[in-house]
Amino acid sequence: MYDSRAAMEALDRADELREFRARFELPAGVVYLDGNSLGPLPRQTRERLARVVAEEWGEGLIRSWNQADWISLPQRVGGKIARLVGAEEGEVIAADSTSVNLYKLLSVALQANPSRRLILTERTNFPTDLYVTHGLLEQLNRDDPGTRYAILFAEGNEDAVEQALAERGADVAVVLLTQVNYCTGRLYDMQRVTAAAQRAGALTIWDLSHTAGALTIDLAACNVDFAIGCGYKYLNGGPGAPAYLFVALRHQERFTQPLSGWMGHAQPFAFRSDYEAAPGIARYLCGTPSVIAMAALESSLDVMLEAPMEAIRKKSLALTDAFMALVARECADLGLNLITPRAPSLRGSQVSYTHPASQPVMQALIARGIIGDCRAPDVLRFGFAPLYVRYVDVWDAVAGLKDILAGRIWGRAEFQARGQVI
Amino acid sequence: MYDSRAAMEALDRADELREFRARFELPAGVVYLDGNSLGPLPRQTRERLARVVAEEWGEGLIRSWNQADWISLPQRVGGKIARLVGAEEGEVIAADSTSVNLYKLLSVALQANPSRRLILTERTNFPTDLYVTHGLLEQLNRDDPGTRYAILFAEGNEDAVEQALAERGADVAVVLLTQVNYCTGRLYDMQRVTAAAQRAGALTIWDLSHTAGALTIDLAACNVDFAIGCGYKYLNGGPGAPAYLFVALRHQERFTQPLSGWMGHAQPFAFRSDYEAAPGIARYLCGTPSVIAMAALESSLDVMLEAPMEAIRKKSLALTDAFMALVARECADLGLNLITPRAPSLRGSQVSYTHPASQPVMQALIARGIIGDCRAPDVLRFGFAPLYVRYVDVWDAVAGLKDILAGRIWGRAEFQARGQVI
Repeated sequence: MYDSRAAMEALDRADELREFRARFELPAGVVYLDGNSLGPLPRQTRERLARVVAEEWGEGLIRSWNQADWISLPQRVGGKIARLVGAEEGEVIAADSTSVNLYKLLSVALQANPSRRLILTERTNFPTDLYVTHGLLEQLNRDDPGTRYAILFAEGNEDAVEQALAERGADVAVVLLTQVNYCTGRLYDMQRVTAAAQRAGALTIWDLSHTAGALTIDLAACNVDFAIGCGYKYLNGGPGAPAYLFVALRHQERFTQPLSGWMGHAQPFAFRSDYEAAPGIARYLCGTPSVIAMAALESSLDVMLEAPMEAIRKKSLALTDAFMALVARECADLGLNLITPRAPSLRGSQVSYTHPASQPVMQALIARGIIGDCRAPDVLRFGFAPLYVRYVDVWDAVAGLKDILAGRIWGRAEFQARGQVI
Repeated sequence: MYDSRAAMEALDRADELREFRARFELPAGVVYLDGNSLGPLPRQTRERLARVVAEEWGEGLIRSWNQADWISLPQRVGGKIARLVGAEEGEVIAADSTSVNLYKLLSVALQANPSRRLILTERTNFPTDLYVTHGLLEQLNRDDPGTRYAILFAEGNEDAVEQALAERGADVAVVLLTQVNYCTGRLYDMQRVTAAAQRAGALTIWDLSHTAGALTIDLAACNVDFAIGCGYKYLNGGPGAPAYLFVALRHQERFTQPLSGWMGHAQPFAFRSDYEAAPGIARYLCGTPSVIAMAALESSLDVMLEAPMEAIRKKSLALTDAFMALVARECADLGLNLITPRAPSLRGSQVSYTHPASQPVMQALIARGIIGDCRAPDVLRFGFAPLYVRYVDVWDAVAGLKDILAGRIWGRAEFQARGQVI
C-alpha cells in the first residue's frame, strides 16, 4: 500500500469526498496541512461575504438586523455546529472567542458545584484554556484568601484522570480537557472520562477546538455537560472566526454566566436597566458579534454539513495512517520521533513528530509549498482535513520532508538563517 | 437661516467635509440618520475586505499572520482609535465586544480600589453596561456574602454625580458613565466628572460608544483612567465590529485582567502552561480576534483619520442645530417633545424626541427612506454623522417627519398595523 504516487492518485479517485476539494480556494502549488490551525477559504464564503458587505451592510444598513436576519446568526450558526458534534439545535451557540466562552462555562461549572474547589485539567492542555482558568481563579480568589479555588493537574491520559478523580474527586468541581491534544494529537476517550467525572460528582467541559469538523463527536451519547470550540480550525470559518459553546439542555437555565451583556438579555430591545437572562442557550451571548465573521462561519459550515461526518473521520484516519506509514518508510533515521499515537482510537486528525531542527525544517517545507506548523519546543505538526487534503498531498509532503531532512534542499546552517514561522 | 432647501444646498457646497460623502456607499434615496447605531460601508472597506478574504486568507493562509501582519491588528487599530480620542498610541487596543471589554476594566478598577465596594453609575446608562456590571458583581459576591459589591445610582448629570460622590465617595471604587446618553443624547462634562471622581479617590471608566468619531475627545487632558467603546457606530467598522478599550499608561502594568487568554500572554507563541501577562496594553487581549472584522474597522478608521476632528464636531453641532431648529419650526404642535439639550456643550451628535406613536412614526419614516431608530418606550433618535450626512438630508428628514406627523402619509391605524423596527 502507498507504493507510488500513482497508487495515491488511485485512492483519490476512489475517495467519496473527492468532490469537496473544489469547494475550497487553495493556492496552486501548495500542500496545505495546517487546517488544524487555520482552515482555507471556501469558494462560497468569498461570494457570501461580498454579498453581506455590499448588499446587507452597504444597501440594507441597520435594516439588515431584521431583513437579513443578522439577529439570529448566533443561534443559526450554533444550530449548524450542533449537527457536527451530536448536540441538539438549542444546545450550541456561536459567540465571542473560545477563551471568552471558556470563562463563561468555567464560571457556571463552579457555581454548579459550590462546595468543590478544584478544576482538574492537564498541564499540556491547550495553553489558552489554562490561562483562562488561571484568570478566573485569580478573580475568584482575590477577595477571599480563605476559600480558594485551585487547579489540579493530571497527566494527559484516561488512567491518570481517573486516578486523580479517585484521590481527590470529592473536591473536583469540573474536569476541563481538550479532546485532542493540540501538540501530540492524542485523542481522549470522551465517554469514559465524562462518566468517571460524573461518578465523582464533577462536571465536564470539553474543548472541541482540535476535533470538531474532523472527527465524529457525540456529545449527547457521552452525556457531556459543557463544551467549547473554535471556528477557524477544521470548521474553516476564517481567521479569528467566532467560537461556540455547548451547554446541555439540563443545565441551561440553572445558572447565569458572568459576561451578561445585552445580547444575552431576555429582552435585548426593551433596553431595561435590570438584567434578566434570556431563556435557553441565548443567555450565553454577551455583546454584539461580528456579522461578517458570523456569516463566513455559517457559509463554511454549510459546505461541511454536505459531507457525512463518518466519511470525514474515515478519510482522516486513512490520510494520517498513510502519512505515518510513508514517513516511517521514507524518513527512517532522519531524526523524526513520532509523538502521535498510532491506534485510531487514540488519534485525531493530525500527526506530530519531534525533531531537533523543527523550526528550520518547517521553514524549508513551507518554502517548498508544504504548509504545516511548529509548536514549542521541537514539534512538527501536520493536520489532515479530509474535505480538501488528498492522498497525493500525503505523498508529496513526505517526499518533501525526506528531501529536506536528508539535506538535499538546504543544510542546517541555511535552515538556521531563516526566521521563525508561526 | 435654514430657509429653503436651496439654502441647505448652499451650506453643503461650503462644507469643508463635503468630499467625504463619496467615500461611503450610501443607497440611493436614503437619508441615513442612524450612524450612531450602525455606520455605513466605506468604499475602501469593500475593497479591503475583498483583498483580505481572497489574498490574505485564500492565498496566504496561515502565513498571513506574519506576512500580512494580522498579528498586529489589535495594536494597530487601537493606535488609530487613540488618535481619535486624545490618547497615546499604546493606550488603546481593539478587542472583543464593548461588553467584554467593560468586564475586564471594571474588574481591574475594583482590584485597584480593594477597600471600596460601590460602582457609581446612572440608571439610564447604556443597558449593556449595567448588565455587565450586574454580571461581575454577581460573580464577585457569590462566594462571599460578607463583602459585597453594589451599584450606586445617581441621576444622569454632573451635579447628581458630584452629590453622590460627596455622600458616598469614600466607598466608591469606580465611576462608570457613558459620555453621551444613548437615549437623550446628553453629553457629560468628562473633565469635571473625572476630576470629581478622582478627588474622591475613585477611578473612572467612560463608555465612548456614542461619542468617539463624532466629537472631539481628549482623554489625556481629562486624565481619564479607563475607557471602552464600540467600533460599529460612528467609527463605521461594520456590523458587530470589534470594540476597543483604553487604559491610561499609569495603570497598565499595575493589574491583570481576568479574561487572560493567549493573545494577552507575554509569549503567546511559547505555548507555556503558566500565564504571564504581556507588557502594556496587550495584556487586555483575550482570544483570537476576527481578522476580517478588524480589517474592516481599520479601513474605516483610515477614512476618518483624514478628517480633522474639530471640523467633524463643528459640522455635527451645525447639523443637529439645523435639525432642532427646523423641527421646532415645521413640526410644532405635532406631538414631538425634544429630550436632547439645546446647549452645544451638553449634546452629542444625535437628536431625540419622544412621541406617543414613536414606533409607527419611525416605521413610516424608514418606508420613505429616512432612517433613524426608536428606543423604548417612546423615543425617536436621529444621528448626524458629519462625514456623510448633508444639510439637505436634514431638510429632507424634517420634511418627511412633518408629512408623517401631520397624517399626510398614513393615519394612526396604519402606523399601528406595521411591525417594530430595530
